[in-house]
Amino acid sequence: MIRVGILGATGYTALELIKILLRHPDVEITTLTSRQEGNPHVAAIHPQLTGRLDLHLEESPPETVAARCDCVFSCLPHAASASLIMKMLESDVRVIDFSADYRLRDAETYEQWYGSKHPDPNRLGKVVYGLPELFRDQIPGAQLVANPGCYTSTSILALAPFLKKGIIETDDIIVDAKGGVSGAGRSPKLTTLYPECNESITAYSVGRHRHTPEIDQILKLATDCDVQVLFTPHLVPMDRGILCTIYARPIGQRGEDDWLDIARDFYEQSPFVRVIGHLPATKDVAGSNYFDMTVRVSRGRAIILACTDNLIKGASGVAVQNFNLMHGFDETTALL
Amino acid sequence: MIRVGILGATGYTALELIKILLRHPDVEITTLTSRQEGNPHVAAIHPQLTGRLDLHLEESPPETVAARCDCVFSCLPHAASASLIMKMLESDVRVIDFSADYRLRDAETYEQWYGSKHPDPNRLGKVVYGLPELFRDQIPGAQLVANPGCYTSTSILALAPFLKKGIIETDDIIVDAKGGVSGAGRSPKLTTLYPECNESITAYSVGRHRHTPEIDQILKLATDCDVQVLFTPHLVPMDRGILCTIYARPIGQRGEDDWLDIARDFYEQSPFVRVIGHLPATKDVAGSNYFDMTVRVSRGRAIILACTDNLIKGASGVAVQNFNLMHGFDETTALL
Amino acid sequence: MIRVGILGATGYTALELIKILLRHPDVEITTLTSRQEGNPHVAAIHPQLTGRLDLHLEESPPETVAARCDCVFSCLPHAASASLIMKMLESDVRVIDFSADYRLRDAETYEQWYGSKHPDPNRLGKVVYGLPELFRDQIPGAQLVANPGCYTSTSILALAPFLKKGIIETDDIIVDAKGGVSGAGRSPKLTTLYPECNESITAYSVGRHRHTPEIDQILKLATDCDVQVLFTPHLVPMDRGILCTIYARPIGQRGEDDWLDIARDFYEQSPFVRVIGHLPATKDVAGSNYFDMTVRVSRGRAIILACTDNLIKGASGVAVQNFNLMHGFDETTALL
Amino acid sequence: MIRVGILGATGYTALELIKILLRHPDVEITTLTSRQEGNPHVAAIHPQLTGRLDLHLEESPPETVAARCDCVFSCLPHAASASLIMKMLESDVRVIDFSADYRLRDAETYEQWYGSKHPDPNRLGKVVYGLPELFRDQIPGAQLVANPGCYTSTSILALAPFLKKGIIETDDIIVDAKGGVSGAGRSPKLTTLYPECNESITAYSVGRHRHTPEIDQILKLATDCDVQVLFTPHLVPMDRGILCTIYARPIGQRGEDDWLDIARDFYEQSPFVRVIGHLPATKDVAGSNYFDMTVRVSRGRAIILACTDNLIKGASGVAVQNFNLMHGFDETTALL
Repeated sequence: MIRVGILGATGYTALELIKILLRHPDVEITTLTSRQEGNPHVAAIHPQLTGRLDLHLEESPPETVAARCDCVFSCLPHAASASLIMKMLESDVRVIDFSADYRLRDAETYEQWYGSKHPDPNRLGKVVYGLPELFRDQIPGAQLVANPGCYTSTSILALAPFLKKGIIETDDIIVDAKGGVSGAGRSPKLTTLYPECNESITAYSVGRHRHTPEIDQILKLATDCDVQVLFTPHLVPMDRGILCTIYARPIGQRGEDDWLDIARDFYEQSPFVRVIGHLPATKDVAGSNYFDMTVRVSRGRAIILACTDNLIKGASGVAVQNFNLMHGFDETTALL
Repeated sequence: MIRVGILGATGYTALELIKILLRHPDVEITTLTSRQEGNPHVAAIHPQLTGRLDLHLEESPPETVAARCDCVFSCLPHAASASLIMKMLESDVRVIDFSADYRLRDAETYEQWYGSKHPDPNRLGKVVYGLPELFRDQIPGAQLVANPGCYTSTSILALAPFLKKGIIETDDIIVDAKGGVSGAGRSPKLTTLYPECNESITAYSVGRHRHTPEIDQILKLATDCDVQVLFTPHLVPMDRGILCTIYARPIGQRGEDDWLDIARDFYEQSPFVRVIGHLPATKDVAGSNYFDMTVRVSRGRAIILACTDNLIKGASGVAVQNFNLMHGFDETTALL
Repeated sequence: MIRVGILGATGYTALELIKILLRHPDVEITTLTSRQEGNPHVAAIHPQLTGRLDLHLEESPPETVAARCDCVFSCLPHAASASLIMKMLESDVRVIDFSADYRLRDAETYEQWYGSKHPDPNRLGKVVYGLPELFRDQIPGAQLVANPGCYTSTSILALAPFLKKGIIETDDIIVDAKGGVSGAGRSPKLTTLYPECNESITAYSVGRHRHTPEIDQILKLATDCDVQVLFTPHLVPMDRGILCTIYARPIGQRGEDDWLDIARDFYEQSPFVRVIGHLPATKDVAGSNYFDMTVRVSRGRAIILACTDNLIKGASGVAVQNFNLMHGFDETTALL
Repeated sequence: MIRVGILGATGYTALELIKILLRHPDVEITTLTSRQEGNPHVAAIHPQLTGRLDLHLEESPPETVAARCDCVFSCLPHAASASLIMKMLESDVRVIDFSADYRLRDAETYEQWYGSKHPDPNRLGKVVYGLPELFRDQIPGAQLVANPGCYTSTSILALAPFLKKGIIETDDIIVDAKGGVSGAGRSPKLTTLYPECNESITAYSVGRHRHTPEIDQILKLATDCDVQVLFTPHLVPMDRGILCTIYARPIGQRGEDDWLDIARDFYEQSPFVRVIGHLPATKDVAGSNYFDMTVRVSRGRAIILACTDNLIKGASGVAVQNFNLMHGFDETTALL
């Protein structure tokens, strides 16, 4: 049994992670941390877990957590996450970080987009990016894995086959992304209050969303192409799901079937990628670890449509995929 | 032109009130108050009002507001509301209070249900309850009107015809109420965060909801019946709307048409009451000042079904109805 | 491996059933039937299943299905279901029927509520009612199991402990039920078109819902009490979930903890029943096979609040629970 | 009083139209048509209208309707609409057509996109396009006005100021549109069944949506620019609202304020256009006739964001705007 801890266990990604791990035959959850006062029982925070997990949230120092766990998932916010992870990495514990702290390759970009100095700059550029479909070989040996952002992984998986193949222009990529409200987290704020965002759609963080540099850098890493995507996210009145509608300029002439074949070839070894002929809907991947994509060609553009569940394939599902690879389990364990 | 002020103008009821008043031919909105820092423009708080109302929110003392207005609507929370209204009533200004402060008839019940001493106990029992369908004659001369609670008015209007007629038992009334999320207000909190209440229904405040004593007392006032309703509200994943499903024990035998006729007779003079044959849906009253009701008889019970828009007939619409009556306008002005 | 067939595989319960069975280690789905033209692939009907199940829907006679399966789940509409099941029962195949056909105990009540003659009246009264929490012992040996209705099972499970214990009046029970739209099935109709039922709540089938006699009869069977519940369902703008708010008249005085203890004792052996202290929300059981319940006492009434996922515990989950018991698997297999 | 008729009065646009016209001081609705059997009362089809309009739907020939009306709004589907309108135009009656029949400028394009011969090809190219912000001068004298499509008008209004000014490239325009479900009409179909489209977002008609040629042709008419927009609509789980996120390539350097100033100048005379600094949300225009837009500049692109209520500014509101201009009323009558 792998003993597992979760840092910052009060949010939505932690809840989904726990539910997946409860189905994992080789996992024992030993530790949940939170700064919530009074060490509440996990079921008081997540009523869904009533009768399923008998643990209290605790505020324990990283050393204590590391001593009790073989693998730790950090669901802490950026900056806070790296500060604790740095300390835990001095032991043998393995870490999967949901925050953005170890995703970017350099400290300057981090500071520019996140507005603060990186707590652990020397590790940047050396941490494995936990998108198994693109970096599967690097994951098994890693002590630390940077779990991808939800918009990021959906965008990258949609673009990688065609950038790698050299059949789209690198300097003319638009990602129009639509995401459910759970992506904004579980802290009460006006913008995600029910009567504010229900029955409404709006763009947000136009030109300023922090997944922008992550998409650029990881696409460079995966395909060796220099890209600067224009990324525009929208808040959609639904709990979960991401749809990316991506506009790219094709190089050369090919029909839609050719595009699909190229994607299918590229993802031949990837059990959670489904290259489909019909238009993807977020409902068809909700609650699952699947990534669905298709391509249409119209008026001189390739339109790549891709979707995931932001909490599963975009966060907790891919984290368990990484966990499985790190520990030698079948990649799909607990995820089908 | 009647000069109007609104206290506590940042919430949902204030927004709906402003939108109705902008359609009123004899109203000029002169003052909006709020404790928001920096005196923001009303359109910065309510983007819907962009280009429609050019006022800043201000934190002005009650005397200043009173001096600038002929009529003030208070959308402040309970206790805070009465504290300011007391002072304004020393001038000639007329006041319509959305809070619960002047709805109950005695200070003890107030203290018991609201958990604090009433700021202005001597007025209790003398303030007009602003439900025109039941107290129309008292409203024109009133300086202060207590605007009804949303669940309260829906429940009371549904029950009054039958209690008055003496055809239901007074000691066996169950009100199972369902309400949209806007009823919980615009302050961010976990329970009304989108991913918490979307795709879910739950009861809340079972046996403890503060509209309970208000229903009892106002039904007594309107029908002279001593009732103790069992009131259970539920939170429904929709912006607005209230449906009350009321279970009562009939006295005597009568068919559904008789029930409907009794209600129609009772509300003959009430332009916003629609006694219907089909089952009411909140969508059919959304955005309107209508109250829809019907009756079914089954297995020895009368089932009274009634609905309103909690922000309109349950708050801002009925407030303007009261305003119209107070100022001698047609009751329906700006409300059709 | 148990070879499984599903009749009427195009609807929501069939989809959920397939997803659960795909997680079952001892099941092989061999046959899916439908009257859809052209034998479409199951993924063309249920895109969620793309890459997960490679079967075509077919219109096969019952004999053929029976020959290819050890156990058949029928998701057909009432009347159609019994007509085919009758024929299959001549072989050794075991059947779990989702329709209402074998739930009622007599043909007259069936004809009265369903408006047509029962196709197989002689079996009525002898078929096991598949609610394991109440009839667990009868299920293992059954060839045919009548899978319960969704409102029915939620209502019955909430009431059974207290009727059995004799602590509520049998002649004064009101079930105010709220259900998500998936309960209305997958056939397009105006009432469940998105813009009709979104942002709205309404009661329907007041006094006429077909789950009424089922609740009465099965409660009689389980508790030996003669009851005639007043059952009122409401359509709630959400995909799935049922909340029953039940009003009962207590016999004797007891506190809320006593009520909870009685329920806990009653369901001690039932892994999917959670007797909780907080108020249940449908979101906390969505996607799971759990049944959550609590009790409040107020103004002389016991208010029992209970919820389930109508597609899982209310249909496909309990069906697999029955399947597990019939075939000697652990009751929770594929359901946690 | 202008006597008004509505053809095809059972859908959502007709309902909104009736509600607006009931507020119009100079309108009397005299005729509602439908092919519904049995001449139902309008309130049986639209329960919202109970007690507000006492008319029955009837299936009357165009001559009868024309004789009873000064102005007819046709909410019929394409092809059916022109067939009746042709006949009515022989009288003096004025017509506002909600269908696509008279929007395109030539019969070939119509046939190509709508798949059938145009019933009245000779009128094409001569009919006024009813977008007052662009063609205000042509509307007063028109006997027939082609009411714009909802996606079309939102897209055109967002682009026109910048095309006219020559500051965006004409051959590189992408419109990523998001619309609520009411846009798909009131006929029950699987794709707009609640449990299908709730909690999901998907693109549809990619490269094939019929508003594409309309956007191209009307932009040509309004700005004299040859454009071929890439238009991609998405279905959003909400009742109403359209958001267009438009990606254009700027000519020359200018800051965001310059873009906004250009739009404000362009729409100086247009009371329903609001050029705003913040990001538009469909909720802020829901139920209103406003069109909200802003511009962001990022990574070499202008991102124009615009929204409307598809049933009001996108259909029934703009129709009444046209009606007002045609009959010499203030453009905003009944619309504020």
